[in-house]
Amino acid sequence: MNPQDRNESLKYYGIAEVPNLFIHGRTNWPNETKILPLFWNNSGVEVCTDGTELWITVECDYDQYEPWYAVEINGALISRSMLQPGENNICLFRGMSSGVIKRVFFYRDLQAMGQDDCCHMLVKGMYSDGDFFEVPKYDYRIEFIGDSISSGEGTYGAHDDMDWIPMYMSSSHNYINMISKKLNADVRIISQGGWGFYCSWDAVRANNIPRIYDQICGLAHGEYNHGLGADLSYDSSVWQADAVVINLGTNDGTGIATDPSLSIEDAEKEVTAFLKKLRTYYPKAHLLWVYGMLGYDINTNISRAVASYIEETGDTNVNYLTLPNTLEDEYGSRMHPGEKSHRKAADMISDYLKQKLDK
Amino acid sequence: MNPQDRNESLKYYGIAEVPNLFIHGRTNWPNETKILPLFWNNSGVEVCTDGTELWITVECDYDQYEPWYAVEINGALISRSMLQPGENNICLFRGMSSGVIKRVFFYRDLQAMGQDDCCHMLVKGMYSDGDFFEVPKYDYRIEFIGDSISSGEGTYGAHDDMDWIPMYMSSSHNYINMISKKLNADVRIISQGGWGFYCSWDAVRANNIPRIYDQICGLAHGEYNHGLGADLSYDSSVWQADAVVINLGTNDGTGIATDPSLSIEDAEKEVTAFLKKLRTYYPKAHLLWVYGMLGYDINTNISRAVASYIEETGDTNVNYLTLPNTLEDEYGSRMHPGEKSHRKAADMISDYLKQKLDK
Amino acid sequence: MNPQDRNESLKYYGIAEVPNLFIHGRTNWPNETKILPLFWNNSGVEVCTDGTELWITVECDYDQYEPWYAVEINGALISRSMLQPGENNICLFRGMSSGVIKRVFFYRDLQAMGQDDCCHMLVKGMYSDGDFFEVPKYDYRIEFIGDSISSGEGTYGAHDDMDWIPMYMSSSHNYINMISKKLNADVRIISQGGWGFYCSWDAVRANNIPRIYDQICGLAHGEYNHGLGADLSYDSSVWQADAVVINLGTNDGTGIATDPSLSIEDAEKEVTAFLKKLRTYYPKAHLLWVYGMLGYDINTNISRAVASYIEETGDTNVNYLTLPNTLEDEYGSRMHPGEKSHRKAADMISDYLKQKLDK
Amino acid sequence: MNPQDRNESLKYYGIAEVPNLFIHGRTNWPNETKILPLFWNNSGVEVCTDGTELWITVECDYDQYEPWYAVEINGALISRSMLQPGENNICLFRGMSSGVIKRVFFYRDLQAMGQDDCCHMLVKGMYSDGDFFEVPKYDYRIEFIGDSISSGEGTYGAHDDMDWIPMYMSSSHNYINMISKKLNADVRIISQGGWGFYCSWDAVRANNIPRIYDQICGLAHGEYNHGLGADLSYDSSVWQADAVVINLGTNDGTGIATDPSLSIEDAEKEVTAFLKKLRTYYPKAHLLWVYGMLGYDINTNISRAVASYIEETGDTNVNYLTLPNTLEDEYGSRMHPGEKSHRKAADMISDYLKQKLDK
Repeated sequence: MNPQDRNESLKYYGIAEVPNLFIHGRTNWPNETKILPLFWNNSGVEVCTDGTELWITVECDYDQYEPWYAVEINGALISRSMLQPGENNICLFRGMSSGVIKRVFFYRDLQAMGQDDCCHMLVKGMYSDGDFFEVPKYDYRIEFIGDSISSGEGTYGAHDDMDWIPMYMSSSHNYINMISKKLNADVRIISQGGWGFYCSWDAVRANNIPRIYDQICGLAHGEYNHGLGADLSYDSSVWQADAVVINLGTNDGTGIATDPSLSIEDAEKEVTAFLKKLRTYYPKAHLLWVYGMLGYDINTNISRAVASYIEETGDTNVNYLTLPNTLEDEYGSRMHPGEKSHRKAADMISDYLKQKLDK
Repeated sequence: MNPQDRNESLKYYGIAEVPNLFIHGRTNWPNETKILPLFWNNSGVEVCTDGTELWITVECDYDQYEPWYAVEINGALISRSMLQPGENNICLFRGMSSGVIKRVFFYRDLQAMGQDDCCHMLVKGMYSDGDFFEVPKYDYRIEFIGDSISSGEGTYGAHDDMDWIPMYMSSSHNYINMISKKLNADVRIISQGGWGFYCSWDAVRANNIPRIYDQICGLAHGEYNHGLGADLSYDSSVWQADAVVINLGTNDGTGIATDPSLSIEDAEKEVTAFLKKLRTYYPKAHLLWVYGMLGYDINTNISRAVASYIEETGDTNVNYLTLPNTLEDEYGSRMHPGEKSHRKAADMISDYLKQKLDK
Repeated sequence: MNPQDRNESLKYYGIAEVPNLFIHGRTNWPNETKILPLFWNNSGVEVCTDGTELWITVECDYDQYEPWYAVEINGALISRSMLQPGENNICLFRGMSSGVIKRVFFYRDLQAMGQDDCCHMLVKGMYSDGDFFEVPKYDYRIEFIGDSISSGEGTYGAHDDMDWIPMYMSSSHNYINMISKKLNADVRIISQGGWGFYCSWDAVRANNIPRIYDQICGLAHGEYNHGLGADLSYDSSVWQADAVVINLGTNDGTGIATDPSLSIEDAEKEVTAFLKKLRTYYPKAHLLWVYGMLGYDINTNISRAVASYIEETGDTNVNYLTLPNTLEDEYGSRMHPGEKSHRKAADMISDYLKQKLDK
Repeated sequence: MNPQDRNESLKYYGIAEVPNLFIHGRTNWPNETKILPLFWNNSGVEVCTDGTELWITVECDYDQYEPWYAVEINGALISRSMLQPGENNICLFRGMSSGVIKRVFFYRDLQAMGQDDCCHMLVKGMYSDGDFFEVPKYDYRIEFIGDSISSGEGTYGAHDDMDWIPMYMSSSHNYINMISKKLNADVRIISQGGWGFYCSWDAVRANNIPRIYDQICGLAHGEYNHGLGADLSYDSSVWQADAVVINLGTNDGTGIATDPSLSIEDAEKEVTAFLKKLRTYYPKAHLLWVYGMLGYDINTNISRAVASYIEETGDTNVNYLTLPNTLEDEYGSRMHPGEKSHRKAADMISDYLKQKLDK
């Protein structure tokens, strides 16, 4: 007997059948398989239900980097764990009061994994003994584009831990999750540790986010992810962001400094080009570039490039802010920003966006 | 194929065979079954290993209240999740650097469940591809005896959540875990939500910790737990505490106030009697009674009773401290102390014990 | 020309003539001289005025320990300074908007100085170009009885500063001032650094607060202070406290430990005796003894003595709480509690009193 | 008898005669009068002395805006008060241990007052009964150029206080003082509330800092200040800054938005021009422009202008950072940044400068 069979009142819903389902994250949906792929960090499903118990059926696999998930109930982080290969039946809650609505958010805590073609995470269905109600409206839609900071590297783990593994990455503890709560915002994350807007920390020119931005998930490679529609063109028409926050530059700085064949002048052009690209997807969104949580190496270059974009296009719905650097006692694991540093970034960005978007 | 079979270097160890295993919590060990029951909150196993991957095999069942577990790696909380009935193979970490020692602590996050005879959680073995090394010495041994506060009720969950369910209880987020880190102490918890030293919050006279203290886990009832040795006599000779912290009184105050057949005078006698009992188990331990995180209703009575104990016995290795009450903005869920309140209690108790035990 | 003569609209009021004057602190008032002595820490005058400018005329002298004063405007600390011997004309504010009411509190920042018979501080009058209005009602009256902690030793100065001088003492930065703000309470302080309820830190039996409690200010000695009425009997009938907080014990512990002719048993009797004495002054006040900001040495004794008092008298309007000890990073100067420690004490006491007094 | 005559061991030193005197702030020194004018916020004198007592003689006058002073002993703020017109003999400490060195910093807490030609503050001498020793070396020299934020408006006073008066301005509580402590830096402030780099908040084109930057204190007008040398040319050769921090822009944004005759394009040119001017004074200093504590209105313009300066001059020893905006619960009085906001700015700037200057 499966655990979810103990409660005879539980009824299974294919994920496409769940009433009032709210889907988080950029993905290929609806699709013919009626199975929901979670490509990106913080992608997931949210429901409001009045039952006593709720399960989710998730399939996953990987060669090297296993996906992790997190569960929030009524906005509070309750559980976080590694997925196992194959079908995972995960109980999201049980034994709760019937007739009271619980708001439940299940999401992928791991970034898209370009380094593991097999890595995937799919939501197949839910078991519930209650009804599903509409998820309360979010006030804003915000897309975040970033690197390891936005992939939450270092937000879990002890100070001296240095392995580059999924366990130390998250969206449950990162600044984007905090902003989502502060602004009541539906957030999406497009991020890849080590990459930049122009090159990666190890000076690979092709490892830049703009190159893969046009696909649903240009970081999910291989046969299997192809089958999931990862490389389909991204259609922004159904989800128009109010703001796009680009938190990139740290890796570009490092990469350019180590490889003379890369050039900061070219990099500046890519800032401008990327802003133009984003504008095609989101004609009305406020574009906010932020930078600095791990130092200000190429601050002047980003600053100049954003200015060039404005001058060239006349588009003034853009801004550039430097964020507070991570102080010595604010590091998490992997020499990456810890909770205090993420909180300061969240405070600054959410304050800025609130005032900008409410105007 | 089971997930733990993917890594062919993994070797299975029955839990009794794991070299240098460090067992946390009061339990029945060694025993004939060579399976380790985790009866109490924060009970668990700790190892140091240099492998790339580590799994634990845990069996559990329950009728109503499911056990939860937590995982700390190198002292940082990494994962927390519900167990499912039956055998759970849980990957504690994978993909880590070989040859580097990781310190891993897997523990029960749920209190002993007197309300569910079927509830149990057993550690059967581990899969490792590395060697096991000695766990670094703890500086102190401290036993905590408490109620819902020590069972971490309210340390997870949103402010308005009120269901009495395992999800909202923990030892991963409570003051005892914080003290363990501050003092480098091997801590044990004997706690039951709703109970006191004399009666429970709902005025049931028998629902008091001293009554069940003499058994290994007098709260784990039923046939199954009997088989695990829960009701065997507790033998303190192998684990002599440096200090015992009793955090009881909140429920007694409520219970006595609602039932005229209960008496505060009798309650005071139970304080004295309980201290005498504890002294028989731990002749040299410092006995510290603390109270106040949820108000000071019977403060005077506990204070007087502790004084009586000292007068009667001449035993001066005892003290009584009032802890800071939970302020309005310091509540977690279930109208119970949240993180800030737990942190203040941890600061005060650990500072006190450090000075007392180092004398 | 005196500075206060520059503004021709200023009018001088003898302090006895100031309409709606609110006097803080235990003192000899009204008196024949119509000059107001400020004997105790935090004693002072408070007014609400709509003028543009306000001065106060204060006379002081001393042999060794000079008085300091502090100024709060609308509840915010604005100025703090040493007084000079002779007449001080102090401008409390100038250049402010006419017609807007400012609430101004001028007070003595230095404890009563038993070690300097000449030390005194007198308020003679005020210069104002506005009218005086009623000071808003305080919600509670609370008397604090204490030692160096209540005299604010260490609340100013660098961590390593060790001189015992007025500069490092205050009521502007101590926990009592914080409580006053939190509870909107009219507070009074009776405190002397180094003293206890039974003996002083250097084991002088006579150096205890109860001995001098019955006079208006039994710590202000000498001819001059005699003339001010310092040694007149204290008449509590005009200011009945809602609560009396006794924060004593730290010095007793030290004194008793160093002199075998002193006895902790006798000290316990003095706790009881002091509570009885306080009850004669304030029949309805809640009596709260607190202790622990600098360690818990004689906690058990105070606890037992308070219990004895209750048993003997049947008076249950009494309580005893231990406060959080000062942690390593919470010290101010002179090895005394700094701001964080005072804040924790203020949080705990004000929370307790609010609930107790609102019942 | 003057108060300073009571201690017969005190010896008077004209300020020019004080051995090892350390002068803070841009001023006219040495000069023929041998009297030291304190023109700017945080300007003052610092000494190390082993006496028991120290006085300072300060002369001041004003028509409308009275100067305030502050005193730090061993790095801790001890006293803050208004000056009175005429000669003020201020006791900085007394009764301290002989033979122990005290480090004392007396400074002007009020900005230069362009609105009051009579306003001035002069240090004439000191009384000491000890010797004077060398002030420990500062690690950096940093000049700050700013507006009301750098003049500390709002760092004293209650939240709702709105008068524009010296009492609410300070350098004792502002971010520059914090940075000075964090970096062990000798800091200088050139600031004027309401002004910008191009125009003032009320759109007066001439009210900009660059216009008055070339004089010692171009904000101190009138006959008297002329006599003090306020309008002499500033000679930077004797004090070469390691960094210059320009915190300007808030008032320009407001001014330009309200007056169509002002132009943001012209303003951008002034950024460039001002940086060029600063470079002439400090050929090797790092020039850091910061902005944002009260919003980001003209962020893009400053950003672009700094980029233009770099492009035009090839000078890359320049940077531009946005600071965290003041959050709702971080305001002091006068709708200006309070302590938390100043602390965040100080953290960010000092972290940045430490890394930049240590390279």
